[in-house]
Amino acid sequence: MDYRQSPNLSLRTKVSSDRLEVSLEEDDLGEPQNDEIVVRVEASPVNPSDLGLIFGAADPRRAIVKEAGGRRRLVIPLDERQAGAMAARRDLSLCPGLEGAGTVVDASKRHEALIGRTVAIFGGGMYSRFRRISVDDCLLYPEGTAPASCASSFVNPLTVLGFLETMRDEGHKALVHTAAASNLGQMLVKVCLADGIDLISIVRSPEQARLLEAIGAKHVLNSKDEGFRGRLKDLVRETGATLGFDAIGGGPLACDILTAMERAFTPKTFSMYGSVVNKQVYVYGMLDSKTIEIRRTVGAAWGVGGWLMMNRMAALGSARVDKLKQRVVREIDTSFRSNFNATIGLEDMVDPELVIKMIGLETGAKYLLDPSLNGPRP
Amino acid sequence: MDYRQSPNLSLRTKVSSDRLEVSLEEDDLGEPQNDEIVVRVEASPVNPSDLGLIFGAADPRRAIVKEAGGRRRLVIPLDERQAGAMAARRDLSLCPGLEGAGTVVDASKRHEALIGRTVAIFGGGMYSRFRRISVDDCLLYPEGTAPASCASSFVNPLTVLGFLETMRDEGHKALVHTAAASNLGQMLVKVCLADGIDLISIVRSPEQARLLEAIGAKHVLNSKDEGFRGRLKDLVRETGATLGFDAIGGGPLACDILTAMERAFTPKTFSMYGSVVNKQVYVYGMLDSKTIEIRRTVGAAWGVGGWLMMNRMAALGSARVDKLKQRVVREIDTSFRSNFNATIGLEDMVDPELVIKMIGLETGAKYLLDPSLNGPRP
Repeated sequence: MDYRQSPNLSLRTKVSSDRLEVSLEEDDLGEPQNDEIVVRVEASPVNPSDLGLIFGAADPRRAIVKEAGGRRRLVIPLDERQAGAMAARRDLSLCPGLEGAGTVVDASKRHEALIGRTVAIFGGGMYSRFRRISVDDCLLYPEGTAPASCASSFVNPLTVLGFLETMRDEGHKALVHTAAASNLGQMLVKVCLADGIDLISIVRSPEQARLLEAIGAKHVLNSKDEGFRGRLKDLVRETGATLGFDAIGGGPLACDILTAMERAFTPKTFSMYGSVVNKQVYVYGMLDSKTIEIRRTVGAAWGVGGWLMMNRMAALGSARVDKLKQRVVREIDTSFRSNFNATIGLEDMVDPELVIKMIGLETGAKYLLDPSLNGPRP
Repeated sequence: MDYRQSPNLSLRTKVSSDRLEVSLEEDDLGEPQNDEIVVRVEASPVNPSDLGLIFGAADPRRAIVKEAGGRRRLVIPLDERQAGAMAARRDLSLCPGLEGAGTVVDASKRHEALIGRTVAIFGGGMYSRFRRISVDDCLLYPEGTAPASCASSFVNPLTVLGFLETMRDEGHKALVHTAAASNLGQMLVKVCLADGIDLISIVRSPEQARLLEAIGAKHVLNSKDEGFRGRLKDLVRETGATLGFDAIGGGPLACDILTAMERAFTPKTFSMYGSVVNKQVYVYGMLDSKTIEIRRTVGAAWGVGGWLMMNRMAALGSARVDKLKQRVVREIDTSFRSNFNATIGLEDMVDPELVIKMIGLETGAKYLLDPSLNGPRP
């Protein structure tokens, strides 16, 4: 399909005073200027953060399907609290899709050589048939690379590599990771194995533990097992892990990790202030949006904080980030390989049944969106 | 009283399997060696952290007074949980008293010139008639300085100055402080005024607010007032305060501060991740030992952590710490002046009524212990 012959189509999410609407909208893409190219988007992962932007504080189980002009849209009524929580985005028509990949179909004069090549993009608005974007937001892959294989080149890979940069910059030598059977968790296992870094992976089921052990994970704990806290303490002492990355947030898990670290490094000579060893857990996700609970069992030298990949990359600076990106390109089929349960089309994103299924997915399961598909998936 | 003519007397706290005992014990001080001096302790503040070491997880309201050999001691029965929480100090006879001041009464050969001088000491074990200690742990005051006026030369003053070092080192420019009517809070008001730093002081009563305003505090908020959160947000925006120091810990206050900061610095262009401004609250006290509650209203760039003066001073290094100490000596009668409600003797520390009164004291009220007093206070 030539992008000039018909209007572009993209997914939109918009909050008004009493509803959130998810719809497909036509727009005019415009011509590529200066350093811009036009990409036919063929693969974009549906990450938890994408679902977060699409539905925000709304409850998709209350979605009503409406049809107009042959197009379906979802309308979700909002109560006052929900509308208030999304006041900052009121009346903005937002196109979700943090990252993706596709084929260059047009370019400004100076980038014409890129036409036909596969690029991965990190620039938002990827749930769209076509995307006009600066080459600075793209990562060029070798000729013939399938877009599906490099659709997740940024969010998960740069988060994993960012964890290791933070670890080194802040003087830690080993890691604890939660919700560790996710695509991201599997990447972290592979990268830590390659780099010789000790990693303690915390999961929530025996199946998840087996999945990680099958790819070589050395230290896997199920937080539902009896004796979990004691075993975590022992592994922390053995590995020297004083830094944790937590995808969950809500509840006591971050505190449990800090407490295990505090117990592992309790000084031999009594001090009422406990260990002087610096212990940190970064919360980088919101699988549970409830309150993060920190009990005072963590000693005096502890920290909990937010960790956002984009902020961390900005702090690292472009030279260091470029090195990380080149590693992603080299290892996209190995360390940074993503697994998807199914490929869906743009129309599937306004199918309430499928949406509810995606949101309820277990860790490690994920959909891939191909906006170039016509109609819903077969 | 010459310390050689009778045994030394000190307060002791000791945990066994089912009880905590607070008693007065005699010991032999020994001769000053190498770089040591002997100080007659004449003033030592009863800080919350001192009460924390003395009573730990025990409940002083359950204290039983016992007498033996003409000396009274407190015996507090412990349940399993309480005993477990203090397992690390079991059977250790600990002498409390983090800091204090007194007169040098003896010294090793090389420090004989110090005899008769007033020194402040930071070395623990100050609830003792005499203290043998290295000169490195002492701060020499001008001749004639009253020990009571420099008894609190370390814990509060170095915490206040440490806050400002952390502020500068971590790139913040203004501060939020809680439980701000404390002795420490008053010092912080004075130092921030002197140094031209904007400070938002959070208190819990109109009396506390008036107390701070009387010494020149510009921005005082009562957390019990209606509209507190909104006013905090406005003041944060006005001052640019992105760093908080919280003495309380338990409950939602640290999160309320971070949330106000997040709202004050919400970007004009919508981002689902909120502000990129780094927001930090350090918890440096435990006025409330309950769970610290962090709701997910804090955006992505936030941190909560423990802040301990001793750890921070160790990180600063001795050259920077020496500069801070010299400022304390210069300003001990102005910025770092402490107020005490009453002076008590060693025997008063085993008076259950007085102990319960001390523990229940309102912010800003504090006792001064003079171990050189004979018998309980008049």
